[in-house]
Amino acid sequence: MPSPRSSTLQLNENGRLRHFLTIEGLRRELLLQILDTAESFASLPGRPVKKVPLLRGRIITNLFFENSTRTRTTFELAEKLLSADVINFNIDVSATAKGETLLDTLRNIEAMHSDMFVVRHGQSGAAHFIAEHATQRVSVINAGDGRHAHPTQAMLDMFTIRKHKGDFTPLRIAIVGDVLHSRVARSQILALNTLGVSEVRIVGPRTLLPTEARSLGVHVFNELAEGVKDVDVVIMLRLQNERMNGALLPNEHEYFQLYGLTDERLENAKPDAIVLHPGPINRGIEMDSAVADGPRSVILQQVSYGIAVRMAVMSMAMQSQADLEGEA
Amino acid sequence: MPSPRSSTLQLNENGRLRHFLTIEGLRRELLLQILDTAESFASLPGRPVKKVPLLRGRIITNLFFENSTRTRTTFELAEKLLSADVINFNIDVSATAKGETLLDTLRNIEAMHSDMFVVRHGQSGAAHFIAEHATQRVSVINAGDGRHAHPTQAMLDMFTIRKHKGDFTPLRIAIVGDVLHSRVARSQILALNTLGVSEVRIVGPRTLLPTEARSLGVHVFNELAEGVKDVDVVIMLRLQNERMNGALLPNEHEYFQLYGLTDERLENAKPDAIVLHPGPINRGIEMDSAVADGPRSVILQQVSYGIAVRMAVMSMAMQSQADLEGEA
Amino acid sequence: MPSPRSSTLQLNENGRLRHFLTIEGLRRELLLQILDTAESFASLPGRPVKKVPLLRGRIITNLFFENSTRTRTTFELAEKLLSADVINFNIDVSATAKGETLLDTLRNIEAMHSDMFVVRHGQSGAAHFIAEHATQRVSVINAGDGRHAHPTQAMLDMFTIRKHKGDFTPLRIAIVGDVLHSRVARSQILALNTLGVSEVRIVGPRTLLPTEARSLGVHVFNELAEGVKDVDVVIMLRLQNERMNGALLPNEHEYFQLYGLTDERLENAKPDAIVLHPGPINRGIEMDSAVADGPRSVILQQVSYGIAVRMAVMSMAMQSQADLEGEA
Repeated sequence: MPSPRSSTLQLNENGRLRHFLTIEGLRRELLLQILDTAESFASLPGRPVKKVPLLRGRIITNLFFENSTRTRTTFELAEKLLSADVINFNIDVSATAKGETLLDTLRNIEAMHSDMFVVRHGQSGAAHFIAEHATQRVSVINAGDGRHAHPTQAMLDMFTIRKHKGDFTPLRIAIVGDVLHSRVARSQILALNTLGVSEVRIVGPRTLLPTEARSLGVHVFNELAEGVKDVDVVIMLRLQNERMNGALLPNEHEYFQLYGLTDERLENAKPDAIVLHPGPINRGIEMDSAVADGPRSVILQQVSYGIAVRMAVMSMAMQSQADLEGEA
Repeated sequence: MPSPRSSTLQLNENGRLRHFLTIEGLRRELLLQILDTAESFASLPGRPVKKVPLLRGRIITNLFFENSTRTRTTFELAEKLLSADVINFNIDVSATAKGETLLDTLRNIEAMHSDMFVVRHGQSGAAHFIAEHATQRVSVINAGDGRHAHPTQAMLDMFTIRKHKGDFTPLRIAIVGDVLHSRVARSQILALNTLGVSEVRIVGPRTLLPTEARSLGVHVFNELAEGVKDVDVVIMLRLQNERMNGALLPNEHEYFQLYGLTDERLENAKPDAIVLHPGPINRGIEMDSAVADGPRSVILQQVSYGIAVRMAVMSMAMQSQADLEGEA
Repeated sequence: MPSPRSSTLQLNENGRLRHFLTIEGLRRELLLQILDTAESFASLPGRPVKKVPLLRGRIITNLFFENSTRTRTTFELAEKLLSADVINFNIDVSATAKGETLLDTLRNIEAMHSDMFVVRHGQSGAAHFIAEHATQRVSVINAGDGRHAHPTQAMLDMFTIRKHKGDFTPLRIAIVGDVLHSRVARSQILALNTLGVSEVRIVGPRTLLPTEARSLGVHVFNELAEGVKDVDVVIMLRLQNERMNGALLPNEHEYFQLYGLTDERLENAKPDAIVLHPGPINRGIEMDSAVADGPRSVILQQVSYGIAVRMAVMSMAMQSQADLEGEA
């Protein structure tokens, strides 16, 4: 697992967000600032005109080395709602297998005057690599890198949790599923601990939980019923198809028997517990449709809030760019 | 064949257009309102600045479950000319084979704050399904569903006919080709009958005409020469390649011998008859190049008018959304 | 090799740029006007708001019959910075193999009210063909056609050279590599000669240099060291992969031994010589990384200037359209 080569890389000298690469190393106040900024955008969708002119004249390049219709679409929407000009650059990974070529690609797109790169890459550390090598004029937003981090997903989960629960500190939260291979889980754990929740649990079969679990500041459970007992929030992870066919898991049916979330199992949680999932759901594997579509599910709100959170992160990063321009 | 589950689904309580799914059930006055609204947009292309700010700040998602560069491009253009923000969502049909998954996709895109879905789908009834399950905040425009309907194509044909012929009532109109499998023909027949033309004919081999022809309010002809005799308008349909190789048709050459439109055969029609085709033309199969490029062809005008008609339908549907917002 | 069927096709009756298809037949003053106009756009990227409203309300269709992420992206950026509405139309070449079908495609896109086509095509003469057959309302920009021309690439090279060298007349310039198959080289030679440089050289193995070299007004060199001796500018061409595997070249390693640019070989050039390359670079084949990333390389500046040059050409062509509209 790569460690971010510089946790201060993403802050400028005034401590403001310059890149958004990982939750690691960010202070509680900054995470709250992201949530508060997102709050101001979350009210826009109800209005007939949803756009704000904050990034008018700015060019944002979506650099997707890995296919992801959903994430790319929500970023693209957030960019357009900020009035930015958007360039989509879908790059065949095979053409950029060598680091040298990634750098050439980076340099070329920089030369096209982008103000911001939104990067999705199958390799852990790719967004950091790009941020380290990018010119001062560019902000980098990590839209998911390998198994490392998916910080905007984590922050939209935090936003959703705060919307329903208000204060983070008293909360007990369970993350269920393939934590080991999940960049989402890794970012969620960092965010939840930074925001000071009472207890973070990870729940799943031994083969899908990281061995360094305790050093992450989480409690480990291998039984679902026990793991969700008295929690305020259940965060389900998506089970990747490629995991199913491997040696780490028996089969879909058996997985659901042991770790699929049902209304019955949810009864162990607090009566007002909410259920999150990053989507798309594998119904009948990670959870029952009754749960996915039930009153405790906030899964579709996560999608909506995701746009506001991405608008927040991008406008904050661009604001720190504007600081720079003001100085120059 | 699916019947629309609710012909009133597409109108709001004031009888205004809320979705545009099918011509079926729409009153003559509403069809004329679409044509009149399109008329106001049809003059824009001559001006240096073609845009109107009607849908500024609105988000339109093009949901194409079926590939169609032309239709998607004309919709996208119409959306941009209305100043909307456009998201293109091309969806692999295989990933959405189950209705459940279509619904999940729908819910997710709704959660992204779209104001309007433009839907193209290989299955009849897909646009209705989406309109039935969409939230109140969203309008659905059918850009072609299976063999069911292609109402914007039909309305652009009506617009083109009115441009050349003025009044619909005295007209005699022949629709030639594979009527049986054509969503375009189905929508055209409904529109022409609602607009009160004197006579609608369908012309083609028995294997390509619907058996319920007479209940559709059309006259059936199996001979082309006879079918176009004294008509004011000839609407040619596109012959799908997959039909060629099947059992329903002999072969391309023989089809052209029997049903291909030539200048000679057009002499049976009125001297000022016009020829329409939804494009792209199979030259030498459905018609001679002499006809396609000749003085009676209005095929390229159809393309131009299609943008104005799509602008009209989308702005009307969004206006009825605005009514709703005004009330709220 | 196709000769442009009409060198005056690209100028209107006032001698202003109407299409931009080839450097051939354009006067020095016009090339300088393009460079001067580009100069006014080149300062924009430094500003927070980079857009100008020159083409607001105009529709530009990118017609790419040949894949080219880079060229399409820089054109798209230039179009958005001019505030135009952009439609991307990627066309499978197989579907348009016949000229007739290309014309049908053209007519259809014209009917969609485009003001400008940016055309990339694998066949020499394609952009001319489209310009000849397009209506008066449309300007055509050649973004590369077969082995014929790539005039915007040549003009961005001229812009880059002028930025560094000021006056063209005293310059000695070497173009190195596969000149025979290069539309870029062809356009560069025409531009350099029109702008009156002192000497244009082409350098490469006999199999990759055109036989009509002398009639092009260039000096031929088969030795790299000799070819770059005392030059002010070295323009490296990209070696196409398909050439490597053919009979025209030994192999990559041997090519680099003979024609790869290294710091050592560059010592033959003037001390302040600059190195250009249209990208993407094949490192270790056309040149060493030390050269590509060294102080004499202006390769990334070429990318940046390319946007300004494309903005210039498109705004000039649209201006001549506006003249036309003024008269009408």
